[in-house]
Amino acid sequence: MWKQTEIRLEPRPRGFHLVTREVVAGLPQLGEIAVGLVHLLIRHTSASLALNENASPDVRRDFESWFSRAVPEDAGYWTHTLEGSDDMPAHIKAALLGPTLTLPVRDGELGLGTWQGIYLCEHRDSGGPRSLVATLMGEVGG
Amino acid sequence: MWKQTEIRLEPRPRGFHLVTREVVAGLPQLGEIAVGLVHLLIRHTSASLALNENASPDVRRDFESWFSRAVPEDAGYWTHTLEGSDDMPAHIKAALLGPTLTLPVRDGELGLGTWQGIYLCEHRDSGGPRSLVATLMGEVGG
Amino acid sequence: MWKQTEIRLEPRPRGFHLVTREVVAGLPQLGEIAVGLVHLLIRHTSASLALNENASPDVRRDFESWFSRAVPEDAGYWTHTLEGSDDMPAHIKAALLGPTLTLPVRDGELGLGTWQGIYLCEHRDSGGPRSLVATLMGEVGG
Repeated sequence: MWKQTEIRLEPRPRGFHLVTREVVAGLPQLGEIAVGLVHLLIRHTSASLALNENASPDVRRDFESWFSRAVPEDAGYWTHTLEGSDDMPAHIKAALLGPTLTLPVRDGELGLGTWQGIYLCEHRDSGGPRSLVATLMGEVGG
Repeated sequence: MWKQTEIRLEPRPRGFHLVTREVVAGLPQLGEIAVGLVHLLIRHTSASLALNENASPDVRRDFESWFSRAVPEDAGYWTHTLEGSDDMPAHIKAALLGPTLTLPVRDGELGLGTWQGIYLCEHRDSGGPRSLVATLMGEVGG
Repeated sequence: MWKQTEIRLEPRPRGFHLVTREVVAGLPQLGEIAVGLVHLLIRHTSASLALNENASPDVRRDFESWFSRAVPEDAGYWTHTLEGSDDMPAHIKAALLGPTLTLPVRDGELGLGTWQGIYLCEHRDSGGPRSLVATLMGEVGG
């Protein structure tokens, strides 16, 4: 079984946001898959997807602290500055974390670890809504 | 053909460890696949998977040197500190390197480059055993 | 349908290079897939693949600026130095960006966002030609 669908994520402020529930809600056929994979692509170059700790909001806040320092907005070497000072750092952060996630499916559910959740990593100050392409593939259960 | 299995990796000290042989040993059906993919997910948020140089131990030591400096334990901006000073940096490193690897399979073997090997990247001082979900898919050979 | 092929990328100078057109040209069966995925692996440990902004050359130049500073060649802690001062930093950069890309296919085309293009990230001064393994899978269109 192959199924492809689009998932629209509401606009969020800059930072790291837990979106596991929203993504699963956008995959109604997930429950039919006995063994398979789901592939997610965020169709933007200044936001990204990650899989990390799903419990403590302070973890997600610390992600923002580290990334803001590691990729500074005021660095003198940026030449692509016409879309705002948060734009070029957003491209770098998006590439470091990556635009895709591929996750295992087992018995109609995501086969994640207990503490793993899907992050929308919003690297722009005002990124707007973000669109995912979700591709579901695998064996239908009996 | 779809096959999903769990692979348990023994506890290892903090650092970067070559685990290609262990992973392949945990995939007995790999030999049946003519053309396909294997997907690996590490079910933890403070360890990660990477694909890099499989020959020189000093490369793996230099990985640890760089990551320890790039994500410092004593930074004043961490707020998630209750699980130890190595915990929050471990989450960041795990997200930078990523929790998954998808690798090509050809004629029953991983289709890697000559110098490529699978790294378990252990970012905690005492991370304990680590668990992978391996999903094998593809066409069975004739 | 499963199809695996090799794509050879011409030697390029150190930096970030847009190769979407070259990759698509190396996938003649892409047009037959109604819904599916394409998986790319670069079979090297000092070059990587990324998906980012496909319009402005200054974005790709700024990528090189940031990565050269984030992973410095003259750091005193490198021990793997026998292959040149650009070698060990190249391994780190390659792991940060990653050796693989998995992309959705829809109606015979890559399902990317408007501004997304495939980057060959060449981290060596003289990396030579680079080889990709491309695996195409999915449902053939009707």
